[in-house]
Amino acid sequence: MMRALRVGRGVWPGVKVRGAASASELGPIGFVGLGNMGGPMSANLLKAGCQVIAYDVSDAAMGQVVSQGGTAAKSPAAVASSAKTVISMLPSNPHVRSVYCGEEGLLTGLANGADTLFIDCSTIEPAVSQEVAKAAQQRGARLVDAPVSGGTIGAQQATLTFMVGGAAQDFAEAEKFLAHMGKNAIHCGDVGMGQAAKICNNLLLAISMAGTCEAYALGTRLGIDPKVLAGVINTSTGRCWSTDTYNPVPGVMDGVPASRDYSGGFACDLMIKDLGLAAGAAGSAQPRLSLPMGSLATQLYIMMSAQGDGLKDFGGLYELINKAQGSEKQ
Amino acid sequence: MMRALRVGRGVWPGVKVRGAASASELGPIGFVGLGNMGGPMSANLLKAGCQVIAYDVSDAAMGQVVSQGGTAAKSPAAVASSAKTVISMLPSNPHVRSVYCGEEGLLTGLANGADTLFIDCSTIEPAVSQEVAKAAQQRGARLVDAPVSGGTIGAQQATLTFMVGGAAQDFAEAEKFLAHMGKNAIHCGDVGMGQAAKICNNLLLAISMAGTCEAYALGTRLGIDPKVLAGVINTSTGRCWSTDTYNPVPGVMDGVPASRDYSGGFACDLMIKDLGLAAGAAGSAQPRLSLPMGSLATQLYIMMSAQGDGLKDFGGLYELINKAQGSEKQ
Repeated sequence: MMRALRVGRGVWPGVKVRGAASASELGPIGFVGLGNMGGPMSANLLKAGCQVIAYDVSDAAMGQVVSQGGTAAKSPAAVASSAKTVISMLPSNPHVRSVYCGEEGLLTGLANGADTLFIDCSTIEPAVSQEVAKAAQQRGARLVDAPVSGGTIGAQQATLTFMVGGAAQDFAEAEKFLAHMGKNAIHCGDVGMGQAAKICNNLLLAISMAGTCEAYALGTRLGIDPKVLAGVINTSTGRCWSTDTYNPVPGVMDGVPASRDYSGGFACDLMIKDLGLAAGAAGSAQPRLSLPMGSLATQLYIMMSAQGDGLKDFGGLYELINKAQGSEKQ
Repeated sequence: MMRALRVGRGVWPGVKVRGAASASELGPIGFVGLGNMGGPMSANLLKAGCQVIAYDVSDAAMGQVVSQGGTAAKSPAAVASSAKTVISMLPSNPHVRSVYCGEEGLLTGLANGADTLFIDCSTIEPAVSQEVAKAAQQRGARLVDAPVSGGTIGAQQATLTFMVGGAAQDFAEAEKFLAHMGKNAIHCGDVGMGQAAKICNNLLLAISMAGTCEAYALGTRLGIDPKVLAGVINTSTGRCWSTDTYNPVPGVMDGVPASRDYSGGFACDLMIKDLGLAAGAAGSAQPRLSLPMGSLATQLYIMMSAQGDGLKDFGGLYELINKAQGSEKQ
């Protein structure tokens, strides 16, 4: 089942191609958090014929999941009392703490000896995943953190990648459910390591995109054709995903956000959120770690957002770097 | 002859596979600057049977080229008066200005109507290449800038990549010579655009390497195995050459500088030089361009150099980021 991917000069282990279990085998699945991500994820479980018992604070979201065949629960506790597997997809640290550990929270609904598996797909700080996992364990339950990459389109098309932290057997069990909502699951280590992997990847992505914007802004200022520059960089040591797959310079590639005024991509504001998680995790690590490059990148994306472009793709930073300085060359 | 390379989602044009002309066809070749790069480059011309008329300020370097079959000239002017093609490989802006335009410089040695082709392989500011090219043109000669990537090993093994700026026919002529010293030549546009491509690539490289060091420092601090983290990043949006081909974390990849205490790589001090060229070019561009990410990366590499590691591979920044903050986790 293990697929080794060859990338660059190394062989990188860890991406599993998983077999989905059938709906009847899976039993009732709890789902808390039916937003832009959780909504389509739960819809994919329903499409696969699974029984979904759902909760969300929004009545509209609840109405939708019921219209798709799901069952409405009146609280997270009610979800946990009627499903042995519960998936959560929530916006941030406090939501996760409250949905799991609050009054009427998931943990209060656990029956004695229920051995429930919680799969938390929220992107939060690793330390919060670990804290909630510990609380679950004290109630006899298990938790894996499983943040995703792939965005709302990946959620709709069931092509998400899950970065999973937890015990090996819990990962194996979680995969049977995740297979209905995504394409890849990577076991990253113990609880919290899914978050760690996602945060570190997105930190590097934020930095390399900012660097890509700067390098192309310099190149065009010096008079080189950005397509020619892409030809050099993408076959050389400066290559990265931001330049060879998601180039932020309009006209260099088709089908990327830069070719449609930075719409339909990874929102600048979401990148700022992930950078905040990286900064929080680094600042509270033992010993603490400073992130100079990440910190500057964050300020640049905040500047972009402050100019009204927070919902645009984060590659729109290229425009800011060029325009703010008055270039008419583009 | 044109080879289109597929990288990521785009097709990138521009890398030429060149046919080398025979030594007799090429005629006498001038060569100025026989240092760590120019020495082995001229040796490769001699190995190919070419006639080389060489000049260097160092008597030792001159002794060596003569022992390899080259002819010693007493000045750059003397080189230019006896060869219709002259290659130069010099350390920085002032050296290029002086070797070309100074007393006893290359341009003073040009015979009337010589139509000499100068191939300057130095890495300098685009504006200086353009200035020297203009001076050469006023004397009836032509110049292409052709900075290299591949380092001293590439120079020794004749596997350099040349980024060339100049007229198309001058590029085509230069290729016949470059083929004896390297593997690839990319025509990047007019004079100066070879420099622009190299500077922009190395700017992005410096930034993405610094980001890679930071992301892995955060990951290990949070407890994720750096090999597992590499498995995630190298198959995801954070991937770049610095992580998938040249990983700076000891133990993640074999055969990279990180696996041998950052020896035998791309010296931190050389990266600082290239970043200085980027800053200079950006600061004097019209309109000016600021390079916030490049500027911070420069400061980090300077910090590394200031701690005595300027000759180590620039990926050694990983050690600085980790150690300076007292981590014992590595």
